[in-house]
Amino acid sequence: MQPLSLPPRLLMGPGPINCYPRVLTAMSTQLVGQYDPAMTNYMNEVMSLYRQVFNTQNEQTFLIDGTSRAGIEAAIVSILEPGDKVLVPIFGRFGHLLAEIAERADADVHTIEAPWGEVFKPEQIEEAIKKVKPKLLAIVQGDTSTTMLQPLDELGAICRAHDVLFYTDATASIAGNPFETDKWQVDAVTVGLQKCLGGPSGSAPITMSERFVQHVRKRHHVEAGIRDAHHQDAKGQRIRSNYFDLSMIMDYWGEERLNHHTEAATMLFGARECALALLSEGQEKVLKRHKLAGDAMLAGVQAMGLTPFGDLQHKMTNVVGVSIPDEVDGESIRKTLLDTFNIEIGTSFGPLKGKIWRIGTMGYNARQDAVLHTLQSLETVLRRGGCKLPLGDAIDAAMSVYCDEK
Amino acid sequence: MQPLSLPPRLLMGPGPINCYPRVLTAMSTQLVGQYDPAMTNYMNEVMSLYRQVFNTQNEQTFLIDGTSRAGIEAAIVSILEPGDKVLVPIFGRFGHLLAEIAERADADVHTIEAPWGEVFKPEQIEEAIKKVKPKLLAIVQGDTSTTMLQPLDELGAICRAHDVLFYTDATASIAGNPFETDKWQVDAVTVGLQKCLGGPSGSAPITMSERFVQHVRKRHHVEAGIRDAHHQDAKGQRIRSNYFDLSMIMDYWGEERLNHHTEAATMLFGARECALALLSEGQEKVLKRHKLAGDAMLAGVQAMGLTPFGDLQHKMTNVVGVSIPDEVDGESIRKTLLDTFNIEIGTSFGPLKGKIWRIGTMGYNARQDAVLHTLQSLETVLRRGGCKLPLGDAIDAAMSVYCDEK
Repeated sequence: MQPLSLPPRLLMGPGPINCYPRVLTAMSTQLVGQYDPAMTNYMNEVMSLYRQVFNTQNEQTFLIDGTSRAGIEAAIVSILEPGDKVLVPIFGRFGHLLAEIAERADADVHTIEAPWGEVFKPEQIEEAIKKVKPKLLAIVQGDTSTTMLQPLDELGAICRAHDVLFYTDATASIAGNPFETDKWQVDAVTVGLQKCLGGPSGSAPITMSERFVQHVRKRHHVEAGIRDAHHQDAKGQRIRSNYFDLSMIMDYWGEERLNHHTEAATMLFGARECALALLSEGQEKVLKRHKLAGDAMLAGVQAMGLTPFGDLQHKMTNVVGVSIPDEVDGESIRKTLLDTFNIEIGTSFGPLKGKIWRIGTMGYNARQDAVLHTLQSLETVLRRGGCKLPLGDAIDAAMSVYCDEK
Repeated sequence: MQPLSLPPRLLMGPGPINCYPRVLTAMSTQLVGQYDPAMTNYMNEVMSLYRQVFNTQNEQTFLIDGTSRAGIEAAIVSILEPGDKVLVPIFGRFGHLLAEIAERADADVHTIEAPWGEVFKPEQIEEAIKKVKPKLLAIVQGDTSTTMLQPLDELGAICRAHDVLFYTDATASIAGNPFETDKWQVDAVTVGLQKCLGGPSGSAPITMSERFVQHVRKRHHVEAGIRDAHHQDAKGQRIRSNYFDLSMIMDYWGEERLNHHTEAATMLFGARECALALLSEGQEKVLKRHKLAGDAMLAGVQAMGLTPFGDLQHKMTNVVGVSIPDEVDGESIRKTLLDTFNIEIGTSFGPLKGKIWRIGTMGYNARQDAVLHTLQSLETVLRRGGCKLPLGDAIDAAMSVYCDEK
């Protein structure tokens, strides 16, 4: 029964990463009641802050109380009724996740797949839309399993032209790569805090267009036990999940403040501070910081003689896949980095398991010193493990990226 | 864009309540990676601590990442397949919630209802079990909407005799009222942190008996994208929710550490500290502290001339319903208490809306000074609002309860 005592890790994997210290400070704030004006004011402020994070005017912008996949499931189960068609273009593990969540909702799930390490061309997606005629297109923006970033800017117009709703999971990419909800005509977006937003897992910000909201409201049913005489149910099929029923969660965050869950206030304080960290530094600056750190890390591993994974034209700024050299045991290198240098880099899933490391530069850790410490330490561990490396080149290459910027 | 600044409320409603300061401190701890040995060790420790909180030997004891109703939905959707019969005895709002969550899972839901302010006799429940022959009995232990505490100690044996699984939601009662998972033969229990455990909403501890787990495992399907050659799916129907699929969440907390969500580490740190606060003070002492505070509050409001709500033989220790006198506006009194004294008491739902206040004495706030400040302030606000009251009697009655104890 000792107090918490955790090693001072530098988290340079695909997330979670170290939180901004200001986020942790905010999360030690004492509570107020869930309908206290002080609380509901902060809820309204969080809605406003995340509209800025998502670059949207959407009224319906709030938090789902759960990890990022809670946000995904809320969006999918609230919009798709059993039998509804959904198209999921899959280019990594998290595409499979979207398809699986939709399958469990008994939707009629159609998938197209790109090889791991590549993304889709808009034409491929449009072609599949024409064939499937789905109600919803569901696609990941950045899939950390492959480090690929799917361009989304042309997909909204395609979806509108074919009367398809457009949902994306931007958990791994938001705040480290451009995201434009309204400009790209995305109807629903969900994210998490634990990547470039620099917070802990456990809260899933969501935004929904009015078009998306209208579909959800058709399924609105007020919970028994809190129903008043003036409440009327919509005619559509009741959403299968109570916890993820976005029509009820909108009532909780909206003017009626109709009780649903008890808002996870500490996570809300953290989510608020994540948004403030981003917006007070400035989105442009934060995106540039991620681009620089990612470029420097990429240059570093290449200069070390290692081979990056996948289509570099479509790499996320904030994570790079690195092929594990044949002569080394990838897990042993990761363990030594952790044990000796307190630095964590990531392993991989599915077809890439044991084949690549994933090195992230996200949020608070998208910093020059974090990049340089990681490269130096990786170089040292590989050298002492018997790899022949051009010593010092990685650091020089990474520092050049930073110097060129100045 | 100001730093968080919240008023110093004393939260004496039905929850959430003020957190133990040590819980807030723990929640400002910097993260480590989700598979870091430091993290998985703490996950194992949390499992062990919550076995003690639940008074169980159940291996499968962990956290669901969401508010308390996330835990409820995880238990219900993982055990009930569409068409499965469930019996829900309802004695308040949260019984309706269990029934509604089961309905949304397309279970065959049978309910019996007790008037708000009463509980069920075991015979009533056994009779309904004989008639319905359900797979599952789902019942709330303490329903804060009515302040009633359903005795559960005889229900486990009844369920075993009729081969029924037994699930209870003890969110509002755990740690303030006795709970004996193994002794009472409860098969699954879910709770939240925001009541007598003295933490924030956002994490839902759960425990499951081996009997319950066997049913859940029959529905085990490994997620696409992380499936290896050695993974085999069970034959039962796949659980409808990915996020709440307890068979996969067991794999994440178990030895395989198969990736599911990213554990909400900050909430886990908070949940750990809630358990430590309880166990280091001692469960018996904490129960006694809640009993004392509840008795003192009850004696106080009665001495003030107010009428408590419901069957006092079956009142939860940690909350009392108080009938709002005809001559006062209940909401106006609550507002003055909050604005003038920074003290929050609760309103009510459904049939009790506007009829009773609910005054809680939970967790950190199950303290003599909190009880006395609340009684004094309520007396003052009522007196200045024009009520005729025997001034000082409430405090004297409450202090007598504490003095008698010494």
